[in-house]
Amino acid sequence: MDIEELIKGKVSEGKEKHVPDISISKSHGSDVEDLVTVHVGKEVAHPNTVEHHIVWLELYGVKGNGQVVDLGRAEFGPSFTEPLARFKLNVADFKAVFAMSYCNVHGLWQNLIEL
Amino acid sequence: MDIEELIKGKVSEGKEKHVPDISISKSHGSDVEDLVTVHVGKEVAHPNTVEHHIVWLELYGVKGNGQVVDLGRAEFGPSFTEPLARFKLNVADFKAVFAMSYCNVHGLWQNLIEL
Amino acid sequence: MDIEELIKGKVSEGKEKHVPDISISKSHGSDVEDLVTVHVGKEVAHPNTVEHHIVWLELYGVKGNGQVVDLGRAEFGPSFTEPLARFKLNVADFKAVFAMSYCNVHGLWQNLIEL
Amino acid sequence: MDIEELIKGKVSEGKEKHVPDISISKSHGSDVEDLVTVHVGKEVAHPNTVEHHIVWLELYGVKGNGQVVDLGRAEFGPSFTEPLARFKLNVADFKAVFAMSYCNVHGLWQNLIEL
Repeated sequence: MDIEELIKGKVSEGKEKHVPDISISKSHGSDVEDLVTVHVGKEVAHPNTVEHHIVWLELYGVKGNGQVVDLGRAEFGPSFTEPLARFKLNVADFKAVFAMSYCNVHGLWQNLIEL
Repeated sequence: MDIEELIKGKVSEGKEKHVPDISISKSHGSDVEDLVTVHVGKEVAHPNTVEHHIVWLELYGVKGNGQVVDLGRAEFGPSFTEPLARFKLNVADFKAVFAMSYCNVHGLWQNLIEL
Repeated sequence: MDIEELIKGKVSEGKEKHVPDISISKSHGSDVEDLVTVHVGKEVAHPNTVEHHIVWLELYGVKGNGQVVDLGRAEFGPSFTEPLARFKLNVADFKAVFAMSYCNVHGLWQNLIEL
Repeated sequence: MDIEELIKGKVSEGKEKHVPDISISKSHGSDVEDLVTVHVGKEVAHPNTVEHHIVWLELYGVKGNGQVVDLGRAEFGPSFTEPLARFKLNVADFKAVFAMSYCNVHGLWQNLIEL
């Protein structure tokens, strides 16, 4: 068994849309930082009950030299808080960003975008 | 020693502005949920270096019956990510919300707003 | 409403024994570090179901100069993992340690011991 | 770029020994649960300074039907707490367990053992 099979991506996607969507809003004006939003269930809302919910989301960056940096993690109060996190950072520091998320029923999911 | 003295609030505030600011953007239109933003250093930016940074922020709600609910936690990648978290939830579920934050040099801070 | 009322301690304890127990096993022989164990439900086991469980435990230290240090946090997989965490550190660095824990039904709890 | 290349395992191991070691101590006597210890730097201690340390460790289980379960996460206070976590659970519930860890300089690492 390989750990790689255990973190599912787009090819495993079913109707519940677990793959964390990553969207980037570039800075403008005097603000020098960008907003990176990670969202599970952007198109089709994921269930949010005590029995079935997204427990956390994480965002990582990959620097030009290959270094992987943990940019942030958000944990959610089940049934109350929606699985959406927004991180404020300078995306020009990275050549790629990737997200991981965890559903308490359907396990680990990931998504990566090259910048 | 009481734990209450160890979590500092507005009266202990110095020039670095550690108290987590809580702002609520009420839902409008078809979206039924509100956005609650927790931000350390809103007025005066807090340092963000490996040696001195905000490690995490948390948001809690207090329900009408007094129950305290962990609504979410955000952890930040020091030197890259700004200490700002936005949670999507229905604030009408709560009579108060409070935030805690942790600076690796200046310890624990809190703020509470009644709704 | 004060945040202090929202983090319950020994005086609020009921039959479920939420207050996190802190025990210290001092180093011996060639190992220079101590083990600090934080345990919810040491005497009376706390329920551990998806509907009712301890979500996390945290340990903090207070240094001689009053600085509060986040020594560690453990999060548990509900229904599988017991709410017990053991941290390896040098307790002589601190004049007190305190723990916080969160039950998804009964909220925040704390305990502090002076060393 | 694949996310799989970004989570390093035994083949990438250098002298600092980042791969999280997993050891299982089976229950005995009246205690029905096992102890699973995850440790980075078991053979060769990893640096533990503010500039270079293990930020967190995680433990996951894989059930017979392939479901991935987040069994726990431990975060450490840099320079004070050693990167070792012990989780109490019943390993017979799983056909494999795997751990992930994050070093703030050398990124993500993993290890998996089949049971």
